[in-house]
Amino acid sequence: MSRHAQQLFDRHRETLDQAVEAITSRGFWSPFPENIKKYPEEAVKGASRRFEALLGRPFPLKVPAVAGQVGGEASPYGFELGVTYDQPEQGALIAAMQAAMPAWRDAGAEARVGVCLEILARLNAMSPDIAQAVTHTSGQAPMMAFQAGGPHAQDRGLEAVTYAWQAMSRVPATARWVKPQGKHDPLVLDKRYHIVPRGISLVVACSTFPTWNTYPGLFASLATGNPVILKPHPAAILPVAMTARVAQEVLEEAGFDPCLVSLVPDTAEAPVTKQLALEPAVKLIDFTGSNAFGEWLEQNATQAQVFTEKAGINTVIIDSVEQIKPVAQNLAFSLSLYAGQMCTSPQAIYVPKEGIRTAEGRLSFDEVAGALARAVETFLSDNDRACAVLGAIQSPATAARIDACRGLGEVLLDSEPREHAQYPRARIHTPLLLKVDASRRDAFGEERFGPISFVIATDSTAHSIRLAREVIGEKGAITLGAYTTDDAVAEQFEELAMAVAAPLSLNLDGGVFVNQSAAFSDFHATGGNPAANASLCDQGFVARRFVVVQSRRHGQPD
Amino acid sequence: MSRHAQQLFDRHRETLDQAVEAITSRGFWSPFPENIKKYPEEAVKGASRRFEALLGRPFPLKVPAVAGQVGGEASPYGFELGVTYDQPEQGALIAAMQAAMPAWRDAGAEARVGVCLEILARLNAMSPDIAQAVTHTSGQAPMMAFQAGGPHAQDRGLEAVTYAWQAMSRVPATARWVKPQGKHDPLVLDKRYHIVPRGISLVVACSTFPTWNTYPGLFASLATGNPVILKPHPAAILPVAMTARVAQEVLEEAGFDPCLVSLVPDTAEAPVTKQLALEPAVKLIDFTGSNAFGEWLEQNATQAQVFTEKAGINTVIIDSVEQIKPVAQNLAFSLSLYAGQMCTSPQAIYVPKEGIRTAEGRLSFDEVAGALARAVETFLSDNDRACAVLGAIQSPATAARIDACRGLGEVLLDSEPREHAQYPRARIHTPLLLKVDASRRDAFGEERFGPISFVIATDSTAHSIRLAREVIGEKGAITLGAYTTDDAVAEQFEELAMAVAAPLSLNLDGGVFVNQSAAFSDFHATGGNPAANASLCDQGFVARRFVVVQSRRHGQPD
Repeated sequence: MSRHAQQLFDRHRETLDQAVEAITSRGFWSPFPENIKKYPEEAVKGASRRFEALLGRPFPLKVPAVAGQVGGEASPYGFELGVTYDQPEQGALIAAMQAAMPAWRDAGAEARVGVCLEILARLNAMSPDIAQAVTHTSGQAPMMAFQAGGPHAQDRGLEAVTYAWQAMSRVPATARWVKPQGKHDPLVLDKRYHIVPRGISLVVACSTFPTWNTYPGLFASLATGNPVILKPHPAAILPVAMTARVAQEVLEEAGFDPCLVSLVPDTAEAPVTKQLALEPAVKLIDFTGSNAFGEWLEQNATQAQVFTEKAGINTVIIDSVEQIKPVAQNLAFSLSLYAGQMCTSPQAIYVPKEGIRTAEGRLSFDEVAGALARAVETFLSDNDRACAVLGAIQSPATAARIDACRGLGEVLLDSEPREHAQYPRARIHTPLLLKVDASRRDAFGEERFGPISFVIATDSTAHSIRLAREVIGEKGAITLGAYTTDDAVAEQFEELAMAVAAPLSLNLDGGVFVNQSAAFSDFHATGGNPAANASLCDQGFVARRFVVVQSRRHGQPD
Repeated sequence: MSRHAQQLFDRHRETLDQAVEAITSRGFWSPFPENIKKYPEEAVKGASRRFEALLGRPFPLKVPAVAGQVGGEASPYGFELGVTYDQPEQGALIAAMQAAMPAWRDAGAEARVGVCLEILARLNAMSPDIAQAVTHTSGQAPMMAFQAGGPHAQDRGLEAVTYAWQAMSRVPATARWVKPQGKHDPLVLDKRYHIVPRGISLVVACSTFPTWNTYPGLFASLATGNPVILKPHPAAILPVAMTARVAQEVLEEAGFDPCLVSLVPDTAEAPVTKQLALEPAVKLIDFTGSNAFGEWLEQNATQAQVFTEKAGINTVIIDSVEQIKPVAQNLAFSLSLYAGQMCTSPQAIYVPKEGIRTAEGRLSFDEVAGALARAVETFLSDNDRACAVLGAIQSPATAARIDACRGLGEVLLDSEPREHAQYPRARIHTPLLLKVDASRRDAFGEERFGPISFVIATDSTAHSIRLAREVIGEKGAITLGAYTTDDAVAEQFEELAMAVAAPLSLNLDGGVFVNQSAAFSDFHATGGNPAANASLCDQGFVARRFVVVQSRRHGQPD
C-alpha cells in the first residue's frame, strides 16, 4: 500500500477503533465537536469572508474532460451565488473512473480507510466554511448548518467508514484449507480473498441536507473501493463541491487518481441523473429525495444496488401525558426546526377526539391542539430566535405549498412570513398547523413537505395506532413519536414501531427531539418501510458495496 | 423465549461457535460428515425402502387452506414418482404466514437460531433419505446426491445461519446514551433495538440441486425472522417437501406455527412463481435457475430484495502445465461430474492455438485437446464408474441440447448414451467435447447447459484472458479455472478473477476440482458478475434480510 496512505491510517487508527466500539455499544460518542466554540477562532470568524470569496466565479475541481459549465445556485436568504462548475464529459469521466479503480482496489482496506478518515478530518476542520455553503444553499439557519452540515454529517460519514471497515475486516486476506483424507495425505489449498468493489457509485444529493445525506453513501462506497460520482441537487452544489475538492486533494496526496471522487453538477433544465443512473458501469446508487424519483430508481436502475432515503408521513401519537406543557414545547421545537424541511419532521399528530389524560386532569382535543399551537407561537414570538430556528425555505415550491395546503383543514395556527434582520429577502415562514378529522386521509395521508402539519382527531388511541399503521404501511415514515403514561400502551407503540419498521421516540420532552438522530447510536430510517429502503447506517448499507473474489491453489502440508 | 427453543439453542451452541470461527478463519470445517460410513447402518440401508414407501401417494404437510393437489415428478432414472402434494390457497397462506410472523420475530435470535440448528441436525440424520429423493428428482448419482444433497447442503444452510447469527449478534438489545451537557445534567436516553424481519421470503428452488441451492436462502431468511415459502421446481419437489416437513415438525415442537415454513408446489403447465414473486407481502426472493427468469425477477420484483444464482460461461484457461496428464484427468472429472449439470461445470476451455509449454516439452493445441478428450474417454470407460459419476440427465431438454450442439464445432469427443445396470431407462449421456476457433463466440459464448463443452483455439494466453474477460463480463461465470507454470501469468489470472469477479482455481490436479466449493471456506459465486447477484454465503447475503427498529425514551442519569 502507499506509504502515505498507511501513515493516514495510522494517524486515525485510534479514532477508528473508538468508532468500532461506538457502533457496537451504541452509547453517545463523536470525535467531531458540535460546539462551534471548540473550533479555532480564526476558522469560525473567517468563514463568511472565505465564503464570499468563492462567489461569482468558477469553483475548480479535477475533471478528466469538460463538457461545459453549469451554475445558478440562489441562497434562500435572497441572493445569487454566481458560482460555476465544470460539468464533466460523461463518457470520458466513466472511462477515467474505471481506469482509476484497480489501483484504489489493490491499495487495500487500510489505505482506503486511511484516506477516508483524513478526508473527514479535513472536512471537520473546515466545518465553519461548510456551514456557510450549507446555509446559503439549503437555507438552514447558521447554527444548524454548522452542526448538521458539519460535525453531524461527518459523524455519519465516519459511521459509514466504520461499518465498511468492520465488514472488510471480517474477510481474511488468506486461509489455508486442510481437509483430512484418512490414511492419505490431507488435501491442502492455499486461498486468497480479495475485496472487490462493485463499480462506479453514484451519490445523488438533496438540496436540504447536501452533506448529511451525502456522506454515508460517499464514504461507504469509497472505503469499499468504489469510485464515487457526486451528483448534487442543482440548488445545492457548493457544499458537495467543497467536499469533492477535499476528497480529491487527499486522494492525490496519497498517490491516487483524484477523479475517484468526481462532481457531476447539472441544472434543473437539463438534468443528468437518469442518464447516469442507467449507465451500465454504475453499480451503486445512493439517493436522497422525492418518493417519485426514488421509486423510479428502485424500479429502473436494476443494474445497480440502490439505496434510497425518500419521504413518508412522520407521525406523532398522543395518548396521555404527565403535563402537556413540556410535551407541547418539545413538539413546538420539532415542528419549527428548519421549518419542517427535515426528512424527520413530524407531519401527522394523532390525538383522540375525546381528549387525553394528564396528571393534571383530562384535556379535551381542542385543549391539546391549542396547547401545541400556542407553544409554537410562543416559541417563535422572538423574531431573532424564530429566524435562527426556522432557517429559510429552500425552495419556492415549498413556500407555495403552504398556501396550497391552508384549505386542507381548520387552521389551528397560521403560517406567517418573517423578516430576517440581516437578509430582508430571505424566504422565512412559520409552521402551518391544521386540525382535521381522521377521515381526511386525503389531507394528512400525503406527504406535505415543509412547515405543514396536522392534528388529527381520532376515535381513540387504538384508532390512532390503527391509522398510523395503515398510513405508514402505505407511505412509510422515518420517525414515529408517541406519548403515553400507560406502560401497556407504551408496549403497543413498541409493537407498532416494529410492525411499520419506524423508530420510536417515546415521551420526549426537554432537549431531545423526535427529528434528531445521533450517529453511532440511532439508526436513521430502517429501510423497512416505503420512506427509505436503506438505513444510515447498518451492516446492510455497506455489505453489498463489495464482493469477495477468492483464489485457491494447492499448498504443501505443514 | 420459548423454553424449548432455548434448549435447542443450548444444545447446538458449540456447533454454532465453531461455525462462527470457521467463517472467520475459513479453514476446512464441517459438523456434517460427508462419508456415508459415518452414518448409522440402518439409516443408510433402509433409505431406499423408506423412499419407495413414499411413492404413489400424497405427501402430507401442514397447509392453512388447500387449493388443490399437484404432482408429476419423474425420476431421470426412468420411473414416475407418483407423489402428490397439497397446493395451498395463496391468499390464505400469505395471511397465515403474516399472522405467524410477530411471534417468530419476538422469540428472538437465540430461539430462531436454535430452531434452525435443530432442523439442520435432523436433516443431517436423514441424509440417506434425502439422497434418495435427490437422486430420483435431480438425477444425481447416489453418492453425489448423498454428499451434495445431504451434508454439503446442510453445511451451506448452517453457514447461512451462522452469518445471520453473527449479523444479529452485532446489534445490541439495549443501550444507554449519555450526552454531556457541560455544567448541566447530561441527556440520558435508554434505547432498545429490535431485529425485525422484512416479510415473507420466497425461495425458488431448482431441479438439479433442490436442497444445496435452497438451504442458504431458507435458513438465512428463517433465522432472521422471516416466514419462508419454498417453491420447488415441479420436477424436484420431494427433497424440498421432506425438508419442509422437518422444519414444520421442529417449529411446532418449539411452540411456533409450522406454516412459518410452507411448501407451494406447482406444475410446469400452471406455474405460480411469477404471481408469488410479485405478491406485495413477499419481501425477499432467493432464486436458482435460468438467467432469463432470474433477470425477470431482478427487474420486476422490485418490492423485494432479490438474490439470484443463475448461469454463466464457466471458464478454464490453459497457459502452461508441468504435466498434461494430471491436468487432463482433473478436468475430465470436472467435465464428467453430474454430466456438466452443475452451475460450476466448465464450459469454455481456452488453449493457445500455438500450443502450450510443459515440463516435458511443447504440446500442440491438438495434443492438449486430444489429451483432454482421451482423459474423459478413459475415465468413463468403466460403465459402472461412468454411471456413478455422470448420474442421469435431469431434463429431456438437456439431453436434446447435446444433439442440437453437436454441429457447433469439430467433435473432439462425442457424447454417447450409457445404460445403467439397475435402471435401464435412465437418461445417461457422456460429455460432448467440441473444438472451435476463438472467433466462434456464437458457439462457446452462450450457456450450453449440460455435458457440452468447448476447447477454444486462441492466439495466445493474453488473447484467452481478453476473451474470457469479455465473455464473463457479458455473461458471467461462477467458476474460473486456470493453469500456468509462470508466476507472472498466475498474477494475470488473479487480476482477471478480480476484474470479472469470478473465483479462481489455479493449477488444480489431484482430488480438488474447479466445480466443487467448500462451505465455510469457499464463497460460491461472488454476486459481482451476471451469473449471480449474490454469494453463498457472505455478509451481504444476510444483512438485508432484516432491519433494525429502535425505540428510545428518557432515562435517569446513573
